[in-house]
Amino acid sequence: MLVKAVSTNQTLAEVGEFSLIRAITSDLPAHPSVQIGPGDDAAALSVEGPVITSVDVLVEGVHFRKDWSEAADVGRKAVAVNVADIEAMGGRAVGIVVGFSAPAETPLSWALDFAAGLRAECANAGVALLGGDVTRARDITVSVTAIGVTDGLPLVRRDGARPGDVVALVGRTGWAAAGLAVLGRGFRSPRAAVEAQRVPQVPYGEGAVAAAAGATSMIDISDGLLADLGHVATSSGVTIQLRTAAFDIPDPLQAVAAATGSDPYALILTGGEDHALAATFGSAEHVPHGWRVIGSVTERGQDEPPVLVDGAAWEGTPGFDHFRGGRR
Amino acid sequence: MLVKAVSTNQTLAEVGEFSLIRAITSDLPAHPSVQIGPGDDAAALSVEGPVITSVDVLVEGVHFRKDWSEAADVGRKAVAVNVADIEAMGGRAVGIVVGFSAPAETPLSWALDFAAGLRAECANAGVALLGGDVTRARDITVSVTAIGVTDGLPLVRRDGARPGDVVALVGRTGWAAAGLAVLGRGFRSPRAAVEAQRVPQVPYGEGAVAAAAGATSMIDISDGLLADLGHVATSSGVTIQLRTAAFDIPDPLQAVAAATGSDPYALILTGGEDHALAATFGSAEHVPHGWRVIGSVTERGQDEPPVLVDGAAWEGTPGFDHFRGGRR
Repeated sequence: MLVKAVSTNQTLAEVGEFSLIRAITSDLPAHPSVQIGPGDDAAALSVEGPVITSVDVLVEGVHFRKDWSEAADVGRKAVAVNVADIEAMGGRAVGIVVGFSAPAETPLSWALDFAAGLRAECANAGVALLGGDVTRARDITVSVTAIGVTDGLPLVRRDGARPGDVVALVGRTGWAAAGLAVLGRGFRSPRAAVEAQRVPQVPYGEGAVAAAAGATSMIDISDGLLADLGHVATSSGVTIQLRTAAFDIPDPLQAVAAATGSDPYALILTGGEDHALAATFGSAEHVPHGWRVIGSVTERGQDEPPVLVDGAAWEGTPGFDHFRGGRR
Repeated sequence: MLVKAVSTNQTLAEVGEFSLIRAITSDLPAHPSVQIGPGDDAAALSVEGPVITSVDVLVEGVHFRKDWSEAADVGRKAVAVNVADIEAMGGRAVGIVVGFSAPAETPLSWALDFAAGLRAECANAGVALLGGDVTRARDITVSVTAIGVTDGLPLVRRDGARPGDVVALVGRTGWAAAGLAVLGRGFRSPRAAVEAQRVPQVPYGEGAVAAAAGATSMIDISDGLLADLGHVATSSGVTIQLRTAAFDIPDPLQAVAAATGSDPYALILTGGEDHALAATFGSAEHVPHGWRVIGSVTERGQDEPPVLVDGAAWEGTPGFDHFRGGRR
């Protein structure tokens, strides 16, 4: 459907901005909240109650490599990582707008595959593609902004964890980092880990489930469990105690850890980009089905780090800093 | 206020992502619609009725040059061009989220000046800086998404112009193009034109004024008056008739046209990036104070171009195509 108007052998320079936009936005599925979709100065959405919004930028060579990821994977990832932020507030994403920048010599086929991935993940997540901006740049850069609603549920912030709460997790951690480790060594397996690096499996819908269950705080695990739970602990003024015994080590992570001579718990505790959700609840009875209890919240002790693992400070790097180009 | 935590002699790599975010978002002014501002997974806004949203991307070397524009100008422009899209729907922008990508060696001072410009233009436009994402990239790339509301006014689309309507304009056209023409020749004057190229003067508030006055269609003039009114005419199935006698030629445009041997009407009719608003109204009595009637709407004649200038087709290029790197 996407290629009706244009030939995919061309470059973006040959088809031009307006044909590309038509190709990307043709035959979009209807969405009950969309009043005005692509094609005007801005889009309009029906909403009730507050709106939630967040932006994520993916840059070629920083967040993805064209030799490691298919164009469709980049499109899917761009949607998934952003919807995860709306989920982490307890919200439901309704629509996205996309800023797409690419070199003029980019093959149209790459852009159309990217758009197909974007649209496929929008369908997975139940969100509408509302519009966007396309422009020329030296590197492919994708900026996705999601708009979400609360459906009457309370917003769940980072700063509400209280001593006595339990900490629970839904979704995977360490898989994307394991995939990155093997891709970086020139391998393509374990395939499940590589696929997790290309497109995260965001637990869509679980953010609202947690909000309905009374989550006291919640966060999207993008930089690694320790780093992101550190944000929760610091903003809540508490200590989070994790128990490694609460985690199973999945086979692909075990395999990658063995092959790279590393600790599988380092992958699980510090690997980013899987976009699991971690939340705190008043008691274990509040934890929704499908979530795993991984620790508890205590008073912040003096000179104590925000997150303890089996009662001790984690030795090693907790997460990623973009400008420092690696682990901080 | 922005530089409290960090020294501006450093680069982004030296201060790191999180210090930069803290510096950009410290001491933000309160805004009545903001429930949750920067610092969580997403921001939350109180709204009533539909929300309007749009994204624009500015890329170094494509939309701005660091030797032609100050960092603060780039920040101001990024906000202004995006708020203009919300205005063009008849809406009022409430908040923005910003994706900011830059090389690790970018001076912190550039980023802070950019942020100061962003915040200054947010204050001009009455919008809140809700949050963002910062990341590393080869070129500075700024993506701004605005969220707006209708305040109970009807949304104004591009496709509602009807034969018999009058066409009216608020704001400037040709100024930014004149500025670009002189900057491209190595000059810095006329200063008013150069400043218009650096930061457009968007007629904030006039979109809602037009909606309240019953505008039948409206568009933001970003690609040039003929190109953008062409979108209105085509989507409405009408012809738009412009009268050059309706335009005054401002002194700076006269000066640039004379210096470059060009037609001042070409600047006015085809120059982009000023972000004026053009709208159609059922009659001249509906045109709000401060808007200038520049033409009328007629039935689309057979084989007629969408926009006629003094009754004839415009000879020349109507506007800009990003991937073709110039006039289309």
